[in-house]
Amino acid sequence: MREELKLESIRSNLIRQEETIIFSLIERAQFGKNLKIYTDTGIHIPDYNGSFLSYMMEEMERVFARVRRYTAPDEHPFTKNLPEPFLTAMVYDWPIKQTAININDKILTIYVDEIIPLICEKNDDHNYGSACVNDFTVLQALSKRIHYGKYVAESKYLGDIEGYKKLIEARDEEGIMEKLTNMQVEEKLLERVKIKTRTYGQEPETVNPIMKIQPDVISKIYKDFIIPLTKDVEVEYLLQRLD
Amino acid sequence: MREELKLESIRSNLIRQEETIIFSLIERAQFGKNLKIYTDTGIHIPDYNGSFLSYMMEEMERVFARVRRYTAPDEHPFTKNLPEPFLTAMVYDWPIKQTAININDKILTIYVDEIIPLICEKNDDHNYGSACVNDFTVLQALSKRIHYGKYVAESKYLGDIEGYKKLIEARDEEGIMEKLTNMQVEEKLLERVKIKTRTYGQEPETVNPIMKIQPDVISKIYKDFIIPLTKDVEVEYLLQRLD
Repeated sequence: MREELKLESIRSNLIRQEETIIFSLIERAQFGKNLKIYTDTGIHIPDYNGSFLSYMMEEMERVFARVRRYTAPDEHPFTKNLPEPFLTAMVYDWPIKQTAININDKILTIYVDEIIPLICEKNDDHNYGSACVNDFTVLQALSKRIHYGKYVAESKYLGDIEGYKKLIEARDEEGIMEKLTNMQVEEKLLERVKIKTRTYGQEPETVNPIMKIQPDVISKIYKDFIIPLTKDVEVEYLLQRLD
Repeated sequence: MREELKLESIRSNLIRQEETIIFSLIERAQFGKNLKIYTDTGIHIPDYNGSFLSYMMEEMERVFARVRRYTAPDEHPFTKNLPEPFLTAMVYDWPIKQTAININDKILTIYVDEIIPLICEKNDDHNYGSACVNDFTVLQALSKRIHYGKYVAESKYLGDIEGYKKLIEARDEEGIMEKLTNMQVEEKLLERVKIKTRTYGQEPETVNPIMKIQPDVISKIYKDFIIPLTKDVEVEYLLQRLD
């Protein structure tokens, strides 16, 4: 099995991504919800129909697309119709099957509707630009983690090709979901995220540390959104694995 | 005195910015130095003379300029000749004197020459895009912190107008530097940054935590670069204060 598909390597990659997700959520949480940036009419942008966040993401992803970011197997843009890269495409030796799976639309909706209200205490503090830049950082971290489900699925598939083949050929989504679920690993992850959030979210100087974010909030985000969405990607990937 | 110029408010703002700086340095440190992205000939970009990092920063700052980011008193671009905003300019009630002080060129040079070799252990790991995006996040955090010296200087000036006026009129840079230096505060800051880096840089799950970054490295960066550069901004600001 290729190095990046070994469970040990995937595990340490996912653990390191927890820091990126937790740091970025703590950074975003210092600003208000600023819901204006998420609605089409909140901030008027000349010659553009859409929210301030969508506008900013489209502009930044256009920059990234030109330098071939989205040709990498672990990168997924939020924007459609991006320009072609003007740098010669990198030749990647894909460790996973190439598919069109990209659930960023769903991730964006959940982020705005569910995650922002959970992490931000203030309402509108007029820091629209800062909120937006931090949103994009969080969204990229979530997207990377959730689509990493493709690697997880490939690794599990290679671990029991015959077992998965039977379920895939029967289009047994429920059976696939059950087979790839490991409750013990999930519970350990949630516990670890809680400890990390408590560690990184505190102001360590003071005796009674003020928390920059509630420790349970990020483990709730993992439980309710990140883990289920990752597993959706895994199931979807496996359903296409034999095509 | 206006709220944002009170020492208490400035202090808590600077303390919160420490998290942003430490988080962003820890994030950057996971990638290799990737020195290729900092030299003009490292990565060839069609119709562009400059480094990959400069190219990316120029493109992103163009996006930010159009949504009026750099009209805010605490924002300073790294790029020259940016486009005009197409959003109506925000009307800011400037709490500080408007000056053209922007030492981002110096910050960029020090970042590439001094800070990158300090924080990154691996050399080239081919993660050019990720390194570059994280560079920009660090650079913005450093720039914000260092130019916040303008607020610090204004606050100190208002605390002793007559005392500073005398030094400013005599163009006594050394005297100004001495007057605004508080060694006790600096030492407390360095100690706090060390504790924070130890807290945020650890992997809290394990018994023998692996450090994602050496605790002393960030306090060294504060001591050798961030504090002196902030004080340079303070002196420069005060020298222009009476113009």
